[in-house]
Amino acid sequence: MVAIKASRAFTNRPKIAKVEGAYHGVYDYAEVSQAPRPETWGSIDRPESVPLVHGTPASALGDVVIIPFNDPERAIAILDRHADDLACVLLDLMPHRVGLKPADPDFVTVIREWATRNGSLLVLDEVITFRTEHGGLQSRYDVTPDLTAIGKMIGGGFPVGAVVGRSEVMEVLNPRAKRVLFPHSGTFSANPISTTAGLVAMELFDEAAVARLNALADRAMKGIEAAIAESGVPACVTGGGSMFRVHMKPQPPRNFRESYLTPEENIRLKALLEHMFAEGFILINTCSATLSTPMTESEIDQLVAAFGRGFEKMAAGV
Amino acid sequence: MVAIKASRAFTNRPKIAKVEGAYHGVYDYAEVSQAPRPETWGSIDRPESVPLVHGTPASALGDVVIIPFNDPERAIAILDRHADDLACVLLDLMPHRVGLKPADPDFVTVIREWATRNGSLLVLDEVITFRTEHGGLQSRYDVTPDLTAIGKMIGGGFPVGAVVGRSEVMEVLNPRAKRVLFPHSGTFSANPISTTAGLVAMELFDEAAVARLNALADRAMKGIEAAIAESGVPACVTGGGSMFRVHMKPQPPRNFRESYLTPEENIRLKALLEHMFAEGFILINTCSATLSTPMTESEIDQLVAAFGRGFEKMAAGV
Repeated sequence: MVAIKASRAFTNRPKIAKVEGAYHGVYDYAEVSQAPRPETWGSIDRPESVPLVHGTPASALGDVVIIPFNDPERAIAILDRHADDLACVLLDLMPHRVGLKPADPDFVTVIREWATRNGSLLVLDEVITFRTEHGGLQSRYDVTPDLTAIGKMIGGGFPVGAVVGRSEVMEVLNPRAKRVLFPHSGTFSANPISTTAGLVAMELFDEAAVARLNALADRAMKGIEAAIAESGVPACVTGGGSMFRVHMKPQPPRNFRESYLTPEENIRLKALLEHMFAEGFILINTCSATLSTPMTESEIDQLVAAFGRGFEKMAAGV
Repeated sequence: MVAIKASRAFTNRPKIAKVEGAYHGVYDYAEVSQAPRPETWGSIDRPESVPLVHGTPASALGDVVIIPFNDPERAIAILDRHADDLACVLLDLMPHRVGLKPADPDFVTVIREWATRNGSLLVLDEVITFRTEHGGLQSRYDVTPDLTAIGKMIGGGFPVGAVVGRSEVMEVLNPRAKRVLFPHSGTFSANPISTTAGLVAMELFDEAAVARLNALADRAMKGIEAAIAESGVPACVTGGGSMFRVHMKPQPPRNFRESYLTPEENIRLKALLEHMFAEGFILINTCSATLSTPMTESEIDQLVAAFGRGFEKMAAGV
């Protein structure tokens, strides 16, 4: 919300663009088309702005432009139609609900160049992906965003959120400016315990810790992929860094529409989640996982074994 | 934000109404006309929807209806013009930035009855005022809101927010409902430390603690009022419960426009705040204070004495 408001304050433009299916929090504009259905999502050349929450004002929907993930040509054609009104393009480089597949470098470059050319900002949402590399997932790309939103892990377990970016843009939040374009304060701001805990957590999550956790995730992904191959069920794994997601599809989906489950796939996914729950693993309804530093190979091997038994049951039609 | 979104989800209406000058957090719709200036606030019969943040979408402004505080006739006339579109009327019963004067019981009754008659909800923002009585400031009124927003103190020092209300409305948030009208989750939800600390804080803030703190505030207000009278400066005190605000005006302002400072009053207020700072008291720029349970008569008497010296300096033209 702060990154979007800062983008509007800097550009004095009303609209934002975001990727279909991407989750960026509970702010009206950010959650448009977070979970659209085939009946209403419209043509891929002009995806509809679909409300998540009943009663979302039509005016808010009209201020959000939806682009498909990893589809530079279609995305640019859509952005071009709103070039003068777009305050920012909001991008998660590996959006969980879009399929947890990393953005193609080409896609990111094209969006970055479009934003620069059209006086719009590029806002990266690294609230989830910041864990991927020491310096965030953006350090794997040749890209400099105007703003980056971070949160979750940077609070060390306490509620927190932050926005960082280039100084000209951050200046809109400067409380000592002659004219404060974006006055911002609140009870959630600068909580001393959240920031202290977050600092300690970030000091501990150094390059070695990131590498160890990523290697653990790699072990998990390879193990689950092997179990899928052995069982022969139509499933696959996507992810990167210390995160992965299991799809009930033979091929990794490239965007939100491809990752959307058929009713049959949905039944199989629910059965897998219930199996995992009975085995002692609680997984989010997308069958995704993010690893945590206390974990070791022992927990990962147990997780992989539990997945393996789940796929075997599925293959046997149990 | 959650209370407003729940109101929209329940009523399937896009607009909200709020009091001119009232602070309700950093959500676009809630912060419209939080700090309008005389040049743009328009006629009191039809207050303009004035953006706080540069670049606020015009469409968001159009979905917010502004009413004057404690002015039932004008407020109802304005609400009537948007009767079919209003999801809720958002009300703080003692809005700090409007003047920290309690709402007249008549005003609250009239708004409650209007909302009921017109299929709109009444949302009380008790994020700040919840401290006023054991059960919130609403327990001093003959009113039952549809939703109440609370926060701040209920987290025991940790960031937190909550929405409570009647079950038919809260049902929009029920994750087990057949059709979830308002899906809501996030990193800030149900943090175990915030909720644990908040529970302990609320257990300690029992009726006796509230009464003791309110008596301390009463002592402060009476002391400051006596100091004002003795010095002869044109100032006054408003407030209630454990909060008060010092105005550089001879009469307590009845609404936001009356509490708006002239350039001369602004200079005097800044001088007073600087004096208090030099005396060891940091006060918010409105010269308001909320007391805290560790405080005793000793701190209050020091505060009153410091205010007294400030008013004396002002009277002497220092």
